[in-house]
This record gives sequence, structure tokens and C-alpha cells, in this order.
Amino acid sequence: MNDAPGTHTGAAPVTVLGLGRMGSALAAALLAAGHPTTVWNRTPGKADALAAAGAVRADTVADAVTASGLVVVCVLDHAATSALLEPVAGSLAGRTLVNLTSGSPEQAREMAAWASGHGIGYLDGGIMTTPEGVGLRTSMILYSGSPEAFAAHRATLAALGDPIDLGPDAGLASLYDAGLLGLMWSVFGGWLHATALVGADGVAAGAFTPVALRWLTTVGGFLDRYAGQIDAGHYPGDDATIDVQLAAVEHLLHAGRERGVDGRLPELHRELMAKAVAAGHGGDSYARLVDAFRRP
Amino acid sequence: MNDAPGTHTGAAPVTVLGLGRMGSALAAALLAAGHPTTVWNRTPGKADALAAAGAVRADTVADAVTASGLVVVCVLDHAATSALLEPVAGSLAGRTLVNLTSGSPEQAREMAAWASGHGIGYLDGGIMTTPEGVGLRTSMILYSGSPEAFAAHRATLAALGDPIDLGPDAGLASLYDAGLLGLMWSVFGGWLHATALVGADGVAAGAFTPVALRWLTTVGGFLDRYAGQIDAGHYPGDDATIDVQLAAVEHLLHAGRERGVDGRLPELHRELMAKAVAAGHGGDSYARLVDAFRRP
Repeated sequence: MNDAPGTHTGAAPVTVLGLGRMGSALAAALLAAGHPTTVWNRTPGKADALAAAGAVRADTVADAVTASGLVVVCVLDHAATSALLEPVAGSLAGRTLVNLTSGSPEQAREMAAWASGHGIGYLDGGIMTTPEGVGLRTSMILYSGSPEAFAAHRATLAALGDPIDLGPDAGLASLYDAGLLGLMWSVFGGWLHATALVGADGVAAGAFTPVALRWLTTVGGFLDRYAGQIDAGHYPGDDATIDVQLAAVEHLLHAGRERGVDGRLPELHRELMAKAVAAGHGGDSYARLVDAFRRP
Repeated sequence: MNDAPGTHTGAAPVTVLGLGRMGSALAAALLAAGHPTTVWNRTPGKADALAAAGAVRADTVADAVTASGLVVVCVLDHAATSALLEPVAGSLAGRTLVNLTSGSPEQAREMAAWASGHGIGYLDGGIMTTPEGVGLRTSMILYSGSPEAFAAHRATLAALGDPIDLGPDAGLASLYDAGLLGLMWSVFGGWLHATALVGADGVAAGAFTPVALRWLTTVGGFLDRYAGQIDAGHYPGDDATIDVQLAAVEHLLHAGRERGVDGRLPELHRELMAKAVAAGHGGDSYARLVDAFRRP
């Protein structure tokens, strides 16, 4: 990925539609990996830097689409994607469309059906990094949709980040994306709460966070075990029961109250635990609480 | 740590008071590391297995305390610890007491003051693992209190797990412990929500979780950067602003509603973000939300 543009003679041509911060990062990563890259943006000025770096600027969407077998679109939303692509459906036929625009699983499935109806290979994607992280092997880019399209273009997509194949249901990349962002906000919230808590007693965030990061690895080990419990529908509490944790959360709430720290987040956790205990599941593992989130 | 008992001739003698599941695990780890280990429990029968493994069973707390320079206590709560130790304060003088009983930072500081008044070295601790994880190098055991006591007994304490020194304020091990558990419940909650979300579309927890675990590493990178922002009181949103994330959380809430998934957790995140945006901080990074948790 660090080779200079052009050194990969024979690298597949790619078109990028939409040159916002994320689209520009995608095009830059493709150029850096040696792919002949055609770009288009509604406001042409956004292509200047990429053109200087070797990208071919297309004047129209149709020109952009016909330049490559692989067309990546990353614009504002689903409505913008549809408005952009409907008029060039004929030109897209026989090519692969990779939709990296944020949207819902339902919108992704609708787009996949539309693409299929026009003979277009379709992959929906979720970029699990910021524009700065595009092109790094450590960054995950989620894909769902046509298995043939994924297999054919996997090597090219690897220029954008590590391609993760979620299978043929085109809606899953968006759904994973949403769920993973929710997990991120939960991690942020728990960490911010804890940082405020220890900060009240004079501990710097920079002192607390290395311990918190190491702790996240331990917590990850629980997730691994709990995933198996959820799939088995069986929640043995031998390592740590909900009962024990309901008692422990009181320590956290008490320490927070003493320090004036906002308690809504741990109060919600307590509420979920207390409901499980009231339902007779106090001896189960925390994984039992998946029931609290599922449709009743 | 895997050497047979007795092979470390000269290993420091240790006493363990309290042989619940955690106390028993502590004593077993010390025995496994070759420390002459004296044990005591209110109900003597709990010492049988440890005695068979080489532990010396003390008949009284005073006998137990005088057997070793290092005394570890792990009982039900602060009241039980005080009731146990007050009568043997004189015997503890000149020794080091390591209190691994769960309690509040305030209780730890009270105990440290009491110990200091009796010439007892004092460390308060937080065991960041289950009984099964005691003795593993990957398990963190947090300590705060006397720097001299920590330095003198660090090598012995390493038999229980990796000893993390939080400095002289005896309350910090409990405070970190509470904060880290809060972080754990937040991770659990975010992961359970996401698991319920993708599960509604037929994705197994065992398929989703490896992606979630890898994502946690990415999220950890944000925490590292955000810790510096919090300590600097400066929250540049160049990587990902609150504005952008407030828009993204709507995708999550929408996907959850469509699938009947309980939305209280993401709704709380949205509330925190919306408040920051209303206060004019929409262009800042998520780390700005520490203000939402701190005493107003």
C-alpha cells in the first residue's frame, strides 16, 4: 500500500463517485496502491488534489462509471446515491458497484435489488474508521452483498482497509456498522463516566486510561465466552453471576453520588440487572441480559 | 507460578484471612508459587482443600496473623474486615495488611488511617478478575496505599496476578475497581444491544462477536487520544465530531426500532450528544462529553 502510484502495472481501474472527506480518502488510498483511479464529484473543485496526485477527473457520472469495472460511491445519503445512479443504470450494467454511503440495512437491500434488476454486481459497505484510517491494514471495511463481486474485487478493496466479508445479505454491513457504533458509544460512555469518577479524586485521564485499555482486553474475553452462551441459549453464571454484579453496581453508584458524577448510565445497567434478578435469573451470567434488549 | 509448592525455598510466608471462592483462589495461587501459606476462615471446613494442598490452618485470627509478615484479607465487606481485624491490631503492628475485600474508596481510606495509627503497613486492592483468573499474569490486581509496603511485597503479590501500583492514596484501588466495572457493564450493554440488533436479522452472536472484538481495539485507540484531550481540556473534533455522531446515532435508533430492540442505551448516548451540541460543542470530539458526567 505504500508503493508509489503506477508501480502496480495492471492494477484494476477503479472509479470513485463523491469526494467528500471520506470519498477523497478512498480515492487517495486507491491511487497510493497503484490503481488507475477515475474520480467525479458534484463540485468539480474537490478533485483538484487527487488529479494532481494522478487521478483522472471525469466530467460526467456516465464517463466516470464507464472508466472502470469497479465503481465506488460515497456520498451524503441513500437519496443522493439513488439520484446519482438511477440515470446511469445502463452504464453500470456488467460492472460492480460498491456502495460505501451510510444508510440503513433496508436501504442497502433496496439498492441491492435495484442493482440486481439492472445486471449490476452489488456490495454494500461500512467503513469502520475515520478518513485518516482509510488505507490502513488495521482498519476494517465491512462488505455484504454479492459473493462473486466480493471474490472478484477483494484484492482491490484491500487497498481501502482490511475487507471483512459478511456474506450475501446486502443489509448486514449497515446493520453491523450501526451496532458497532452503538458499542463504541457505550465504551465511550463507560470510559467517560469512569474518567469523571477517578478524576474527581485527582486522577488524570492519561493515568487511568492505560489501565482501562488493558481491562478492555479482559472484558473482551468475557464477550467471547458470552457469545457462545447466547447462541446456546444457556447462561451458566459460574464465573460471575448477575446477583454478584447487582451488588457491585451499588458500589459504583455510591461512589458516583459522593462525587457528583452523572449516574444515568450505571443506573440503566442496574435496572437491566435488577429486572433479570426479579425474573429469577440472578444466578445466570450477564449474557442473560440479551433478553432485555430483544423484542419481547 | 507453575512450580510445585515448596520449590521456592525462602519464599515469603503469607497469611490469608477469609476462604470464600476468592480468598481460596488467592491462597491456592500463593501455595502454587511456593509461599508458606497460613489460612483462616470463620467456618474452618473451608480450609480443608487448601490444607491438603499444603496450607497451614490457623485456629485463631491472632495465630494466623502472627504466622506471616504479609496478611491478606478477603471477606464479605468492610464491616466484616473491621470486626475481624480490630481485636488483632496489636498483632498486626509491624506487618503488612493487604485488604482485597470489596468496599468504597472512603472505607479504604478509613482502614488505611486505622492501620497507620497501629503501625501496620497497608495496601488496599481491587481484584480485576474472577476467582478462576487469580494467579494468571494477564489478570490485573490493583493496589493503592503504602509505597513501602508495595515495594517490599510486589514480588509476592505477583503470585496473585499482575500487581498494578496506583500510588499512595489507599482509596484509588476501590475507585478504579468501581470505574472499571462500570466500563465493563457499558461494554456488555453495548455489545448485548448490538448482538440483539444483528440477531434480529439472523446473525449469530458467535459470528458478530469476533468483528466486535476487533472493533474494540479500534475504539481503544480513540480512548488513548481522548485521554490526552481531557487532560488538556481541549477537544479538537478533526477525526470525528459530535455533530457527525449525533446524525449516525439516528441510524442505530431507527434500525433498533425496526427490530423491536430496547433503545434505552443508545437513547441515553443521543441525549448526551444532543446536550453537547445544544451547548455549542457539536464540532468537538466525543471526549467533550466528559463534561456531561462531571459534577456541574
